[in-house]
Amino acid sequence: MITVNPERFLADLHRLREFGAAGVGKGVVRPAFSAPDIAAREWLADEMRAAGLTSQFDPVGSLFGLAEGKSLLIGSHSDSQPEGGWLDGALGVIAGLEIARASVEAGGPPISVVSFQDEEGRFGVTTGSAIWSGNLSLEDADRQTDREGVSFAEARAGMAHLAGDFIDPARFTGFLEMHIEQGPWLEQAGEAVGVVTDIVGIRDMRITLEGQQNHAGTTPMHLRRDAFQGVSRFNSLINERFRNVVTPQTVWTIGHVRLHPDAHSIVPGQAVFSMQWRDGDADRLRRMEEIIRDTAAEVAQDMGLGLSFGDMLGLEPVPMDGSLRAALCDSAEAVVPGGWRQMQSGALHDATNVSRLMPAAMLFVPSIDGISHAFAEDTAEADLVAGLEVLAGAAARL
Amino acid sequence: MITVNPERFLADLHRLREFGAAGVGKGVVRPAFSAPDIAAREWLADEMRAAGLTSQFDPVGSLFGLAEGKSLLIGSHSDSQPEGGWLDGALGVIAGLEIARASVEAGGPPISVVSFQDEEGRFGVTTGSAIWSGNLSLEDADRQTDREGVSFAEARAGMAHLAGDFIDPARFTGFLEMHIEQGPWLEQAGEAVGVVTDIVGIRDMRITLEGQQNHAGTTPMHLRRDAFQGVSRFNSLINERFRNVVTPQTVWTIGHVRLHPDAHSIVPGQAVFSMQWRDGDADRLRRMEEIIRDTAAEVAQDMGLGLSFGDMLGLEPVPMDGSLRAALCDSAEAVVPGGWRQMQSGALHDATNVSRLMPAAMLFVPSIDGISHAFAEDTAEADLVAGLEVLAGAAARL
Repeated sequence: MITVNPERFLADLHRLREFGAAGVGKGVVRPAFSAPDIAAREWLADEMRAAGLTSQFDPVGSLFGLAEGKSLLIGSHSDSQPEGGWLDGALGVIAGLEIARASVEAGGPPISVVSFQDEEGRFGVTTGSAIWSGNLSLEDADRQTDREGVSFAEARAGMAHLAGDFIDPARFTGFLEMHIEQGPWLEQAGEAVGVVTDIVGIRDMRITLEGQQNHAGTTPMHLRRDAFQGVSRFNSLINERFRNVVTPQTVWTIGHVRLHPDAHSIVPGQAVFSMQWRDGDADRLRRMEEIIRDTAAEVAQDMGLGLSFGDMLGLEPVPMDGSLRAALCDSAEAVVPGGWRQMQSGALHDATNVSRLMPAAMLFVPSIDGISHAFAEDTAEADLVAGLEVLAGAAARL
Repeated sequence: MITVNPERFLADLHRLREFGAAGVGKGVVRPAFSAPDIAAREWLADEMRAAGLTSQFDPVGSLFGLAEGKSLLIGSHSDSQPEGGWLDGALGVIAGLEIARASVEAGGPPISVVSFQDEEGRFGVTTGSAIWSGNLSLEDADRQTDREGVSFAEARAGMAHLAGDFIDPARFTGFLEMHIEQGPWLEQAGEAVGVVTDIVGIRDMRITLEGQQNHAGTTPMHLRRDAFQGVSRFNSLINERFRNVVTPQTVWTIGHVRLHPDAHSIVPGQAVFSMQWRDGDADRLRRMEEIIRDTAAEVAQDMGLGLSFGDMLGLEPVPMDGSLRAALCDSAEAVVPGGWRQMQSGALHDATNVSRLMPAAMLFVPSIDGISHAFAEDTAEADLVAGLEVLAGAAARL
């Protein structure tokens, strides 16, 4: 039994929000390695020490609060999107802090805390935990750059005065991560928490269509090779063809489109766009890839366009650990009987990487209107506290 | 009879190409008010004086070479697109220079020459001739800015040391403009020149669709309000619905698309795109506008998107002057019997504006592969010379 203190937990969440407060609702602007991010991590390190843990930054800015001996690790990340909310990963970090502190007060079990660096991918995808887990080499990470051309090596040099060694993963018996759902399902069902069964796999690539840049007044329609028309037709066709392949949980997105020369009076000679798709089943991801490649080739052929595919980013679906999941389910049924579910995670999380090193599992709380990665992100206080209590109950059971 | 000198004409065209030569084929980078543009205009002024004309810049950088008394005006523009070819408007300016020079040598008739400023629309649309014709006030023009935020007032201040008064249009009996076709028709038919019947009208507006920015992993497809999906569906529907309304000469283009936040992992919350359409018939332009507005409203309604239309730029179709056209047709039949046609112009030209002030007509020469506004733009030398001779013959007939 670990008796957490909901008021202290909520007060800490609000305190963390002040680092990078956006001035819009509870919005936060605290991207990895920004001044507010580093200040927030220094404050967290102080709080960890005050809770009786040993604080240690690793070489890439991930912050650990370590209990003595073998311990369960609880946490997430405290960096935010360029336009983010106050909860996201911060919720999981502060929940870990509160449970570790309450556990010290209760005389055990030993609980450690972590805030991974750059989960939001200023430089990559879940960068800090990817490096720690061996999914990404430090050398490769150092070469990655953000949108402004700043390299990861340059960014982490700004935290060099805080950096210690990498933490030995063998210290930990398992990893629990609490996070907001970032989707609508829990709120729509009126449920307080969700125990994650698995984290979906993701595929992401850039597709380029090359047409013929030409005058938009003098080039007849039948002679055009218009790269934007290619994107539009590709989009319509895959929406149609995916129907027989997908489940209600499958998602796909064209979120980025860049035309060249991008002028009103010029037929677009080039279109570069992103194609991303996610599903819990690796085989379905593969079938969708086939449809994407075949459809793009067919559109390019029909419309006389050149076609090239960028490198494909692929992360496999990751099942959560069975016994950690069971502890979360038992605890959920005790705290909110009948008011919880098991569910898939459509978003990537640090747990994806950590599951390579140790048993890992996740817990979700509802997102109001399903909104995240936006200033409007929020969760009802009662749900935040329910999540904390379910997590603490699971930690006590392990 | 005005006997032109083809070698001198071609040599001058090549000399003008050196101002802003792109280093790629015969490509030219000579946008309005750039250093190469101003240098080219100073060279043209020297050549005009050497030909026996009086050179005069107006307050916005348009350069006139004036004959004594009432005269026919021949010319076009010498500024280029950011990525342009060596001919475009430069062809019409050098043709005017050669014909005026040859006419002085032949003892008449009096021919004046013009190179309008910013036809390519760094600051607007056919800016220099629009101001001269009263289509655009100098005050409004001065407030217009280019893509980098430089105002027209600032740009023309860079030519203030050259500027004289506006030229009185009453000096001129009519305006002839030679230009490359910028389309494929003449080359495909193996014809040397085209006499323009009318310049199409144009409609251009920006359309904004507002959706809901959200996480691309956790937002189920059926709950998305994806602004890019709105653009794509709008595009498919108008392509379908225009079929019953358009002619083979009608064109429409989505050349510019901007998504927000334009990221792989975020469902686009906003899409701003350009919609431009052109036709020789004002009634058809109006019917197309109805389809565009109705279809956008329908898509927005169906997909739960917000919709707003920007200001609509509208230029009416302009018929060319009957007697100038007849002179061009007679001359064409004399120079290239059976090897010419009458045709519509799908592009805007300075003649659109000048036709408000005086009778105006245009002559086209073929564009190789229909390419323009690109470094690859070109025309066979024989066609350039045929165009010059047809134009000179028409001037002699007037």
